[in-house]
Amino acid sequence: MKTSLPSDEWADLLGAVDGVEVVVDDLSGPQDHHRDVVVVVPPYLRPWDVGLLAGMPRLRLVQLLSAGYDGILERVPHGVLLANAAGVHDDSTAELALALVLAQLRGIPDFVRAQDRAEWMRPGILPSLADRRVLLLGYGSIGHAIARRLLPFGVELTVVASRAREGDELVAVVHGVDALPTLLPRHDVVIAIVPLTDSTRGLVDDGFLAAMPDGALFVNVARGPVAVTDALVRHGGRLRIAVDVTDPEPLPADHPLWHTPGVLVSPHVGGATTAFAPRAVAMLRDQLARVARGEEPRHVIHRPSDH
Amino acid sequence: MKTSLPSDEWADLLGAVDGVEVVVDDLSGPQDHHRDVVVVVPPYLRPWDVGLLAGMPRLRLVQLLSAGYDGILERVPHGVLLANAAGVHDDSTAELALALVLAQLRGIPDFVRAQDRAEWMRPGILPSLADRRVLLLGYGSIGHAIARRLLPFGVELTVVASRAREGDELVAVVHGVDALPTLLPRHDVVIAIVPLTDSTRGLVDDGFLAAMPDGALFVNVARGPVAVTDALVRHGGRLRIAVDVTDPEPLPADHPLWHTPGVLVSPHVGGATTAFAPRAVAMLRDQLARVARGEEPRHVIHRPSDH
Repeated sequence: MKTSLPSDEWADLLGAVDGVEVVVDDLSGPQDHHRDVVVVVPPYLRPWDVGLLAGMPRLRLVQLLSAGYDGILERVPHGVLLANAAGVHDDSTAELALALVLAQLRGIPDFVRAQDRAEWMRPGILPSLADRRVLLLGYGSIGHAIARRLLPFGVELTVVASRAREGDELVAVVHGVDALPTLLPRHDVVIAIVPLTDSTRGLVDDGFLAAMPDGALFVNVARGPVAVTDALVRHGGRLRIAVDVTDPEPLPADHPLWHTPGVLVSPHVGGATTAFAPRAVAMLRDQLARVARGEEPRHVIHRPSDH
Repeated sequence: MKTSLPSDEWADLLGAVDGVEVVVDDLSGPQDHHRDVVVVVPPYLRPWDVGLLAGMPRLRLVQLLSAGYDGILERVPHGVLLANAAGVHDDSTAELALALVLAQLRGIPDFVRAQDRAEWMRPGILPSLADRRVLLLGYGSIGHAIARRLLPFGVELTVVASRAREGDELVAVVHGVDALPTLLPRHDVVIAIVPLTDSTRGLVDDGFLAAMPDGALFVNVARGPVAVTDALVRHGGRLRIAVDVTDPEPLPADHPLWHTPGVLVSPHVGGATTAFAPRAVAMLRDQLARVARGEEPRHVIHRPSDH
């Protein structure tokens, strides 16, 4: 089963998998092996030419190394499966969400700036994460990983997903997005970890942010366009904000969000940690062995047209 | 039972407790009511005159609002009990420990500085907390609270206390301090949360830090003098360091630690959050009611001479 990996490094990390023949391809242009490649693993966090997929007659599966699949799902040829790296980024992204929440509540950015001035601040009473009412917007595998880390901090946790459903071992109930207008005014912290889709694009707009109480914290570890950047700029200061993803991304040097009061920007580092490679390799080895044996791949993304 | 509280605000927060008569006293000088005060609650994080205790003939209990009791235990008159605010600071201090660990591993101080330059950094692969080998030095109630928050991050946790003992629901075993030379080289993160005593003063010295591997992170949320500040300055850069407490404290403007590479300083904010007042009030109400009923107080600190 001919399988393209994005670099020699990934080929080395993967090692030998029964029934899998590896070719290295960064998908920047046509290659002879496109004739018979069966599985394609595109580059991670680098541009690649999705249009090349149409020139791969034997292609069965596009296996992403990212959790997100916006901009790709629509362009994968009919009959070809698309799978994301579900689970691979859970630990790394969930801990960045906690890092951003704790940094903003406990005043770390102010302390960094005070340290550069050699100044021992007297910040007074800051909010703890303990006792905070936290709303988690999105409850896929990363959302679940965030919830598991939040609960030992003694928060009151509310979870919202696209549709209301029963809870699990962590939360009694999962609310639907239609409950947001009622829920937002009652929460101190909102963490967005929804996939970017037609229904989540621009979800965090002026109305959403206006419904959050003064001094509340909004954190985006989803995708930049889930929030309306101009609205973040307008509400920064009244709200505290931390974003690992922006729209546009990267954020240009002259963008007002850099200097909006109460805002912390991290440069899309949710996934790029030492946790990534070992988890990605384990996922790839399992997935490729599975497909080489003729079994169904895991983590397949269903297109709206599949329904 | 005449009980002194450090301010009108504390008296208001406490409210009425059966059998307790409150007087307000910041313990800055002699007062008539010192003749018959039975319980004294000294000010929190402000200087007060420990010598005044000797002029309180009916004094039975000094109830601190802090977890630490260094510099006080030795000066409490014979026959008077000293209790710390065990449990009150657990949530707040444990979450600051996590905030400092996550901030340093995930690069938050660099992002804050890059943000001030309006620069989208490309930091490459940073360490995750997931998969890290973490050594918790000190396993009282705050240490336990740190452990409960660390474990869902997928760390490998080792716990060290003054003496080796059996583990609990979180760890299989508690190591004694004598195991440190063997343990330190095998850990990526060390978090100090020991009380300051004769045996922990200067415990984190050149030898301790030299035993930690390159790139490892040392975090102090205990007391400043637990670490030798000059040694922190010497090892900063090779190690990453985050300290909420320093020696001297506050750190003077001309101190080299401010600008030592790889160091993050927060200005002793472990306890000063919204979590403090409600937990302190609940503890005080329980403790004062208990003593007023003639029962033994909780959280009494035993002096070495008691043994």
